[in-house]
Amino acid sequence: MPNNAPAIKREATASMGAEIVLVGPGSLERQTRAEELAAQHGYIIVPPFNDEKIIAGQGTMGLEILEDLPEVETVLVPVGGGGMLSGVATAIKLSKPSAKVIGVEPELAADAQASLRAGKIVHSTAEQTSRTIADGLRTQSIGPINFEHIRQYVDDILTVSEDEIRQTTLWLATNPKTVAEPSGAVAVAGFLFHQEQLPGTMMDVAIISGGNIDPQLLQEIRRGQVGAGRVSTLSSLS
Amino acid sequence: MPNNAPAIKREATASMGAEIVLVGPGSLERQTRAEELAAQHGYIIVPPFNDEKIIAGQGTMGLEILEDLPEVETVLVPVGGGGMLSGVATAIKLSKPSAKVIGVEPELAADAQASLRAGKIVHSTAEQTSRTIADGLRTQSIGPINFEHIRQYVDDILTVSEDEIRQTTLWLATNPKTVAEPSGAVAVAGFLFHQEQLPGTMMDVAIISGGNIDPQLLQEIRRGQVGAGRVSTLSSLS
Repeated sequence: MPNNAPAIKREATASMGAEIVLVGPGSLERQTRAEELAAQHGYIIVPPFNDEKIIAGQGTMGLEILEDLPEVETVLVPVGGGGMLSGVATAIKLSKPSAKVIGVEPELAADAQASLRAGKIVHSTAEQTSRTIADGLRTQSIGPINFEHIRQYVDDILTVSEDEIRQTTLWLATNPKTVAEPSGAVAVAGFLFHQEQLPGTMMDVAIISGGNIDPQLLQEIRRGQVGAGRVSTLSSLS
Repeated sequence: MPNNAPAIKREATASMGAEIVLVGPGSLERQTRAEELAAQHGYIIVPPFNDEKIIAGQGTMGLEILEDLPEVETVLVPVGGGGMLSGVATAIKLSKPSAKVIGVEPELAADAQASLRAGKIVHSTAEQTSRTIADGLRTQSIGPINFEHIRQYVDDILTVSEDEIRQTTLWLATNPKTVAEPSGAVAVAGFLFHQEQLPGTMMDVAIISGGNIDPQLLQEIRRGQVGAGRVSTLSSLS
């Protein structure tokens, strides 16, 4: 795990019986260390995103959305390494080409948006991506297999601010009573705060993925924002 | 509001523009004060549970359960004043007499169970009911209209311990990622911890009602229990 992963994720992993090896925050270093361990011990590596089977697996979320809500018009998907976005976009577009698929990532880790705009994979440093509270989306670049899927099937990628991520995390816990970690809240933040950048359809789905949040962090967000009156503004959106 | 209501409930109420009048924890005192204010200002009192319209309104939950899951066999319902239990039990039993309806309340505020067993309404003191962490269920007795419904339509009322309520509140946040306050978690606690007192059916529904929990309390529960290894035991139930 990256050495800047939140304690709650380390604890949850340890409680399932894992032996945790902490590696510097860079994803390249992590990949290298995982390959060393796999070679030494005969472990099987489960790649986080740049893999066709992982992409196909994540794509089943798109199929489930279509099954539950065939009238869906826009799907918002969080972006880190791009595995979920690749899979969901491919599933949605090949099943229902008229639906829009929008990726959402933190402003402070916006390499996927930059890649889509530049037409080639853009890299961030670990120092850059470590700035976002959305620790699950701190990957330094999307994978090449992901990029090909995203380029072909994703309509746009928009970014959300740290403040929007925090407000949305609190709003999810307070209103729909859903525990989401900041990384899990970004797609909903895109929906709540960036309507002007969305296609303006009436039947939108935002994927919430990742709910390992320390209640202490939720409390800090709440203390920081209740006084500002922004939460009650957001409440009216529910 | 009772003067021992948690700060998060007072804040949430105030943020909606309410003027809050705090009254001692006893529900009789609260009722009297509400009637005084209503008489002075021409306010309309919305009774918390002992009212046929309130019961009918809560009963729509039972109808929704039957609509979503016609094969339901057992429904677990939190009990405070008995409004929700009255409504849900009546809706379920009149629509599907074969289904079982079980009330669940804290051991430390078990007046509804005592009333059902005694065949008459049993009262607790505010001092007694104030002991439970489930502040939404601290009513001192069920209402007479509720009692008639419960006696006719409820199969049983079981109780859960404070520790079971705490564990379930944490489990709900950690596993199904649902924010529930302790009062909201009691029916699920009954399901998780008291299988031997349940009818043993395969298609059970537990109502989660009440999600106003201070993240600080969730953090305290987590700190108190993660070390004990009970959470991981519970996780295996998911």
